[in-house]
Amino acid sequence: MERPSPIAALKAVLPEAVWTEDADRIAPRLSEWRGRWRGETPIMLLPRNTAEVSACVRACAELGLPITTQGGNTGLVGGQIPLGEVLLSTERLTAVRQVSPLDDALTVESGVTLLQAQQAAAEVERLFPLSLAAEGTATVGGVISTNAGGTAVLRYGVMRDLVLGIEAVLPDGRVFKGLRALRKNNTGYDLKQLFIGAEGTLGVVTAATLKLFPVMRSRATAMVGLNDPEAAIRLLALAKSETGGGVDAFELMKRIGIELVLQHIPDTREPLDRPSPWYVLLELASGEPGAAEAALPRVLERALSERLILDAAIAQNAAQAAAFWRLREEQSAGQKPEGPGWKHDVSVPVSQVAAFIDQATAAAESTCTGARVSAFGHVGDGNIHFDVLMPSGGDRAAFEAAREEGSRRIHDIADQLSGSISAEHGLGRLKTAEAARYKDPVELDLQRAVRAALDPRRLMNPGVLF
Amino acid sequence: MERPSPIAALKAVLPEAVWTEDADRIAPRLSEWRGRWRGETPIMLLPRNTAEVSACVRACAELGLPITTQGGNTGLVGGQIPLGEVLLSTERLTAVRQVSPLDDALTVESGVTLLQAQQAAAEVERLFPLSLAAEGTATVGGVISTNAGGTAVLRYGVMRDLVLGIEAVLPDGRVFKGLRALRKNNTGYDLKQLFIGAEGTLGVVTAATLKLFPVMRSRATAMVGLNDPEAAIRLLALAKSETGGGVDAFELMKRIGIELVLQHIPDTREPLDRPSPWYVLLELASGEPGAAEAALPRVLERALSERLILDAAIAQNAAQAAAFWRLREEQSAGQKPEGPGWKHDVSVPVSQVAAFIDQATAAAESTCTGARVSAFGHVGDGNIHFDVLMPSGGDRAAFEAAREEGSRRIHDIADQLSGSISAEHGLGRLKTAEAARYKDPVELDLQRAVRAALDPRRLMNPGVLF
Repeated sequence: MERPSPIAALKAVLPEAVWTEDADRIAPRLSEWRGRWRGETPIMLLPRNTAEVSACVRACAELGLPITTQGGNTGLVGGQIPLGEVLLSTERLTAVRQVSPLDDALTVESGVTLLQAQQAAAEVERLFPLSLAAEGTATVGGVISTNAGGTAVLRYGVMRDLVLGIEAVLPDGRVFKGLRALRKNNTGYDLKQLFIGAEGTLGVVTAATLKLFPVMRSRATAMVGLNDPEAAIRLLALAKSETGGGVDAFELMKRIGIELVLQHIPDTREPLDRPSPWYVLLELASGEPGAAEAALPRVLERALSERLILDAAIAQNAAQAAAFWRLREEQSAGQKPEGPGWKHDVSVPVSQVAAFIDQATAAAESTCTGARVSAFGHVGDGNIHFDVLMPSGGDRAAFEAAREEGSRRIHDIADQLSGSISAEHGLGRLKTAEAARYKDPVELDLQRAVRAALDPRRLMNPGVLF
Repeated sequence: MERPSPIAALKAVLPEAVWTEDADRIAPRLSEWRGRWRGETPIMLLPRNTAEVSACVRACAELGLPITTQGGNTGLVGGQIPLGEVLLSTERLTAVRQVSPLDDALTVESGVTLLQAQQAAAEVERLFPLSLAAEGTATVGGVISTNAGGTAVLRYGVMRDLVLGIEAVLPDGRVFKGLRALRKNNTGYDLKQLFIGAEGTLGVVTAATLKLFPVMRSRATAMVGLNDPEAAIRLLALAKSETGGGVDAFELMKRIGIELVLQHIPDTREPLDRPSPWYVLLELASGEPGAAEAALPRVLERALSERLILDAAIAQNAAQAAAFWRLREEQSAGQKPEGPGWKHDVSVPVSQVAAFIDQATAAAESTCTGARVSAFGHVGDGNIHFDVLMPSGGDRAAFEAAREEGSRRIHDIADQLSGSISAEHGLGRLKTAEAARYKDPVELDLQRAVRAALDPRRLMNPGVLF
């Protein structure tokens, strides 16, 4: 008698409701929205609770079957796409287990979307602050596994800063029960940290306890014109100091980015009377009614008197604030009609932002004559989306041919300035080799030692990280 | 020819300036201020920089010599006291390597004291917020290794939340170079997290990059009288909500704790006109000049109208605020003349604080008739110093005999309420066995797997943690 295939054996040990081989059902899970990856999988597992996740992972471990775990499938670096592995989806792990306003804590399963988590917090008059474009689809488990950032990092930190506890199924199927709503607990290594940003390599996150915050009571938004990124960084320090940390957003944009949005995106308009070489979208918030509105003019007047800024416009109502935000949010869309671009998601220490932009711009322009640089991003966190656009009417093939060298030089500059080549998107399948170039060998060894300790057979998301 | 002893071999390979066998020099390092531990060591290593730490650790590793690392020797659980191991002191690692106000970052070596770090921040008009009683002696390395808390956790978090980067010498002598001032960096596991709270078991922290914050511009302090801890927790939620997170301190005290301070500590006085069963020291702070002073009466009036509080006094000046703080800070000193106590450093979810105090008080009183409970602490973090005092004029021997059972029952209650038996002091040598009772076997396995991956021969602080 022939031995059954591992997949047949897997199906035999799991309840029928927990798996599917339906190609139509699986297909949307095998590509992602940018269309960069086409995956394949023999089977998709759809466990409904932690016990079923444990049974699925244990069965795969016993059969030696590697697993790729997928949340909302919004990742940008291919980490969620199986290339032959079993696909484990968290889409049925959707329970909101506990909302505890007195603890400022919310416990949800990992398939809950970021938006649903935000809504569960809002229902008890609390804020879950992590916010990003894909929040209607991105799941809590995915956002934990990629340690996502987004637009509220300056005040509230990245996902790592917002997680109080984690429940996860380990690579051998055992359950790590780390769901705690404790603010202080010093009893050994803080193991939950391992699963945050691990991109699914150390187990499957099944639930998390998240930190909640008070809802803010005042908010004020301005668009500011400046001469250069150096001035922007000094404005940031001034605004933080004047408000005691009340800066909620600080987004830098270059004139070309504003111009492309005005040119290509309908219903957008110049934010200031005269164009400036650079712009900052500055937003203050406070728990005190009226405090942000009072602080913003004070900050801007001082910045004007210190000649840090050229011009500024304070949003007079929510619609004007939204119009300012639109100029920021459409930066990528505004570039699209201009053809391909070399895109980079780097971070550097805030003090090095201006040096990075200067040096990287020079590197881009010397790698490809006429290339146009549109740098923008969450500069309050040192995070720059450094995009190099094709020369106007330029030679597309020549631009593509220069991409590898150009990106390499830009990443080298970030590295030399003590920066990172992946500030918020993670490494996934896309950036792992590039990241390994910049890692110290000791750190690479440590990365591998930790992985081997938890997943000695490398069965969890084997294609990602080191 | 005889082979030299390992210690002789160690002396032979290290520069003479780096070690000492001078018993007078070593003696103060072998006991701690509570006098609970008497250590011993064959030799003390005093490396002057990271390269020397690396040479010391490498030489010990090659000779199979275990090491205990010591910072300021202020730990409360014996983790810093060698029992036969080589003693490695960080006392010469005192460089302030970089102060970068634009990055809100400060890089110091691990032997720098907490107070020196605070001062280095203040010199550039920034705040390093971690603050605790031993800050003049406790070192940055020690505070990282124990993930210390202190009085500013409610707003700024524990030490883990304040570390941007770490440099550490691994158990084999290699150097992990993780000193980064980046706010966002998603390129694999965040390895620095391993060393925070590791109590020296995964290597020697040699330097760290710390987060700085804006200096606050207004501050307001009140002493509040309440009926019970339940009301205190509701007051906390109200104050956080009304101020958008502007609560800097929220310290609960029981009437008996106030009475003992008034009785035993000179120059202290009743904070309110009439005694209350419970007290909260509430402090608000804001970056806006005047905002905290404006918010405090609003919060207290609302709390009075909702009948959450019985009475309140707002400090009219810095001296009055200091007098309120003194009542809190002298809680332990006030107990001392009353004889021995069973002391507990527990945390529970904030919502469970009242339940914990009720149940633990009943357990203490039924274990030892007449025992007096003085609960106080950083209740905003769910951290309760739950101290059980001997009955007035009671039988000391009987009280000591009941200690083990009493403490066990109190820890059991914290555990049943999803709490921790060591909120901020760590485990060290003192609490490891007790902590192991409450750890899930899966978590204990993971703790040991991580340790074995980094230190397979268990040479670093072998007597602490699991």
